[in-house]
Amino acid sequence: MSHNQNYTAAVIVIGNEILSGRTQDTNTAYIAKTLSGRGVRLMEVRVIPDVAETIIATVNALRPAYDYVFTTGGIGPTHDDITAESIAGAFDVALERNAQAYAILEAYYGRDQLTDARLRMARIPAGSSLIPNPVSAAPGFQIGNVYVFAGVPKIMQAMMDHVAAHLRGGDPVLSASVSCALAESAVAEEVAALQDQYADDVEIGSYPQFGGIAPALSIVLRSTRRDILETATQALVVLMEKRGVEPQLSYSWE
Amino acid sequence: MSHNQNYTAAVIVIGNEILSGRTQDTNTAYIAKTLSGRGVRLMEVRVIPDVAETIIATVNALRPAYDYVFTTGGIGPTHDDITAESIAGAFDVALERNAQAYAILEAYYGRDQLTDARLRMARIPAGSSLIPNPVSAAPGFQIGNVYVFAGVPKIMQAMMDHVAAHLRGGDPVLSASVSCALAESAVAEEVAALQDQYADDVEIGSYPQFGGIAPALSIVLRSTRRDILETATQALVVLMEKRGVEPQLSYSWE
Repeated sequence: MSHNQNYTAAVIVIGNEILSGRTQDTNTAYIAKTLSGRGVRLMEVRVIPDVAETIIATVNALRPAYDYVFTTGGIGPTHDDITAESIAGAFDVALERNAQAYAILEAYYGRDQLTDARLRMARIPAGSSLIPNPVSAAPGFQIGNVYVFAGVPKIMQAMMDHVAAHLRGGDPVLSASVSCALAESAVAEEVAALQDQYADDVEIGSYPQFGGIAPALSIVLRSTRRDILETATQALVVLMEKRGVEPQLSYSWE
Repeated sequence: MSHNQNYTAAVIVIGNEILSGRTQDTNTAYIAKTLSGRGVRLMEVRVIPDVAETIIATVNALRPAYDYVFTTGGIGPTHDDITAESIAGAFDVALERNAQAYAILEAYYGRDQLTDARLRMARIPAGSSLIPNPVSAAPGFQIGNVYVFAGVPKIMQAMMDHVAAHLRGGDPVLSASVSCALAESAVAEEVAALQDQYADDVEIGSYPQFGGIAPALSIVLRSTRRDILETATQALVVLMEKRGVEPQLSYSWE
């Protein structure tokens, strides 16, 4: 059974530490790969600061535009953790003490260590479902089509994995990668012709590498149709071999 | 002499390979750090696909909102390199063969190797200034307040360094980082009070780490005022020492 409907998503990375360059965001790539495997296409990422009005405006711009919106960052216990209240603002619902989140935090910290700061993490927008945090207890949450994750990669990954298991998507996007020692421009015309030929079913990207001794090129082909992907990939291998190089081929399902 | 005017910037990362999770973007962090050193605040990053209408709409949404907009990706010789034509579309100017870019490419490839694909890289929006590419010749360009860079990190970094030398900015943003073995929530209230006290001059972020044996916490303070930054940082060190831990302190200018 084929699900050819397109499912789309956006990611909102909330965090001054990414915008200052202090922290390298790795969450986007993790979410992107997980979504590809579930047949959901990541269409857009926005990195924004810890500013409530910006978070609210961005969430409300993206949630009607895509099937899913994922946010990372800003759900901890400190003054700069303003994601939960901003999401409540975006949905115009109350930010309330969630009984289930309270019970999780109480079990983790013990009642006498449940400080005001830690209790901040029990404040969840009304109408949300919780997303478990197996690392440090404080949960993420889902409201409507918005999934609110922690920013710490280990926690974020666990939350994404949990959500992904239930996510409705289309056919998974399969990919092939063909690499060879040619300059990108040497095969640009043939690759463009191949893209034209398979315009409906295969998306072809061309990625040069620099820094090694010889030029290096990777061509990536992506499709939900395995048979067509293999045919297009073999055509690419043949045209590279005609140029006298030995392409390296790998498929995402191997 | 102090330049207290705020200078702001946005980055547009153009590339399906980032949205598919195949490639980890590192250009944003490089641009962010370079801008911090020049007294320019990166306010927003958008990652978008290789789609002309999306590039045009994003450039035109961001260029009136910030002092500078930087784009990365999509200026190579292949069919998926549509940034130059999209920027011309955003500015409603012609995409024309740039004589200087042509001369650079001719010198690099030799006239008989200047294929149609390579000549694509001489097509530059009318009214642009070129940005040199010391790695593989094909230049980036600037038009208005938009700087168009390659996506390959080595080339992008050279282009950013070239541009940064001429960029007008405010006072550089200085930072201090104070790390210790405490849970983030243990000092959350004191850190919030410190943020309130220095609300006008210092921006304080709190970043927990997980995965080690003990909890670990980094507090980052950012300011253009070195004297105030040092005072706030020392206050933070004292309050951590009162908790019985030995904080590790580093300043960005050391």
